[in-house]
Amino acid sequence: MRMNSILVFLVLFTLAFTGSAQNKEPLTLASQGSFFVGGEDKTVNGGEITINQMYVQYQVPVNAAQHLPVVMVHGCCLSSKTWETTPDGRMGWNEYFVRKNRPVYLADQSSRARSGFDPSFLSAVKSGSVPPSQLPNILSASHQTAWTVFRFGPSFNKPFPDGQFPVEAVDELYKQMIPDLNSTLPSPNPTWKNMAALAGQLNGAILMGHSESGFFPEQAALIDASGIKGIVSIEMPCTNFNEEQLSKLAKVPTLIMFGDHLGDVQGGGPAQWMNSFNGCEKYVDQIKSKGGDAQMMHLPKLGIRGNSHMLMQDKNNLQLADLILNWIDEHIERRATPRK
Amino acid sequence: MRMNSILVFLVLFTLAFTGSAQNKEPLTLASQGSFFVGGEDKTVNGGEITINQMYVQYQVPVNAAQHLPVVMVHGCCLSSKTWETTPDGRMGWNEYFVRKNRPVYLADQSSRARSGFDPSFLSAVKSGSVPPSQLPNILSASHQTAWTVFRFGPSFNKPFPDGQFPVEAVDELYKQMIPDLNSTLPSPNPTWKNMAALAGQLNGAILMGHSESGFFPEQAALIDASGIKGIVSIEMPCTNFNEEQLSKLAKVPTLIMFGDHLGDVQGGGPAQWMNSFNGCEKYVDQIKSKGGDAQMMHLPKLGIRGNSHMLMQDKNNLQLADLILNWIDEHIERRATPRK
Repeated sequence: MRMNSILVFLVLFTLAFTGSAQNKEPLTLASQGSFFVGGEDKTVNGGEITINQMYVQYQVPVNAAQHLPVVMVHGCCLSSKTWETTPDGRMGWNEYFVRKNRPVYLADQSSRARSGFDPSFLSAVKSGSVPPSQLPNILSASHQTAWTVFRFGPSFNKPFPDGQFPVEAVDELYKQMIPDLNSTLPSPNPTWKNMAALAGQLNGAILMGHSESGFFPEQAALIDASGIKGIVSIEMPCTNFNEEQLSKLAKVPTLIMFGDHLGDVQGGGPAQWMNSFNGCEKYVDQIKSKGGDAQMMHLPKLGIRGNSHMLMQDKNNLQLADLILNWIDEHIERRATPRK
Repeated sequence: MRMNSILVFLVLFTLAFTGSAQNKEPLTLASQGSFFVGGEDKTVNGGEITINQMYVQYQVPVNAAQHLPVVMVHGCCLSSKTWETTPDGRMGWNEYFVRKNRPVYLADQSSRARSGFDPSFLSAVKSGSVPPSQLPNILSASHQTAWTVFRFGPSFNKPFPDGQFPVEAVDELYKQMIPDLNSTLPSPNPTWKNMAALAGQLNGAILMGHSESGFFPEQAALIDASGIKGIVSIEMPCTNFNEEQLSKLAKVPTLIMFGDHLGDVQGGGPAQWMNSFNGCEKYVDQIKSKGGDAQMMHLPKLGIRGNSHMLMQDKNNLQLADLILNWIDEHIERRATPRK
């Protein structure tokens, strides 16, 4: 970091003050809690364990009746912490959406965080029945990888001059980064089925994914779209689907959001964001050609500059949340029949 | 299970109804959020990762000024889910304590759930630099182990006739059980230091531990007791400390709680609860002999029968919460000078 410590102190002090001003109104909830979706028994060493379940934590505001629930699913090497208090202590999207009268459901992906994981690959290698070379690749993003893949700047510890990520608090982001065991999961990823089931249980919900999970809402809709009333996909590669799949997906209103500096990381970085963006522009056109309602929201085209990959934690995160809320209002809720 | 499915349905229906009645008053929060305590950088494969941090999620009620914050730390093979909605859908201690005007801080132990873990032991074995036999023992409790260690009944799937655990919803408990990587941690366990630091950051807090973490508050107090205003230790083996350590610990009011059927699991089960109980009775006497305020609350001695090891999820969980709240009032808060 090139900023001196006095500047860091002043910035953090200012942000903390802004944060507390944001939070000063009490938050009133009709209900809150947590539960699991999915999960199957597996016999390991003569006993049963439960695997592939998905932990979900929710808050329902008092004036939720007019709005659909929003399910938020985090990306690679992260947990639902993604959506909570930002690294510099501001309000996250989870609470902001609740304050905007939306029931919010945070899901830890199956095999991550409070959802647990299937540890039997470890005992198989430890006992010698599987060679160590067949241990799965557990993803663990270094600070260096996070800085460039998440586009905080052109190279490690060098921020973009107009960057929106609170780089003075980047160490707090690094604490959120945890090992990613998705490679230990069966195929298809059980999180997809669990997200579809959750939307059904909620009698209709909007599914939001980010990065690794950015296209999970679409994968969930291909399994069972009956509960999925809308999709918000943030910064991910878009999968190539066939015509039948695209026709199914065209029935669900879809918003795709990308931030800034997609091609501005030195050497492109480990993630090829321009390729992902171009692929998703194509996907939006494909959905439209099937008569669907899909929109690419590329923030720089709206005059919003400097957003990183972790845009739900960027300094203008609530402005971006408002864009999503307005899109939900315009494209899903005003078209739908009133909820009971 | 010997109950037929109609009975299971009726029980779940009744419990769900009771649960919703419990929850019908809106909950008003002054603030909520999440953050990390501790954490150090480690170089792995030429990059840095952060390890040993502790994830903390909190809620502060509007009328919290008169009360100390309560930090709740879960046990083996579990996460902070322990304290939330019970397996059968009733209110957990986290929300109940908040409704009783206590700020509540839920911590995922370092190396568990949203706190992440250090995955470098895996790459070391995969690359061949460490033999597979040296893979750490990752604890993963089977359904069979949970049933007997948690004292739901004398043997697997056979409940105690007076058991308080909602065995009709035991599958939901099994989904909470996740791999425990504490064996990958350095010694002393970083969670101890993190708990002490959290109490200090909060300018005074009551630390509560359960089972594996039951004695973590005491371990935290030996590192730095300055922020620890009280200790609640639930169902664990009590460590043998030396005279100097006991003198330090005697300065912190301590409540120890044990449930029922400590010796009633067939063959004793994998956990020797009577031994743990006897060891903790000795510990209480030792603290008293140093002039400390320690109390053993053995629930059957109060006429409260049938409590399992997961007593924060038992059907009478809120009755037990009241016992703890009353103990806090009597032994800590009424003796302390008013908080600013």
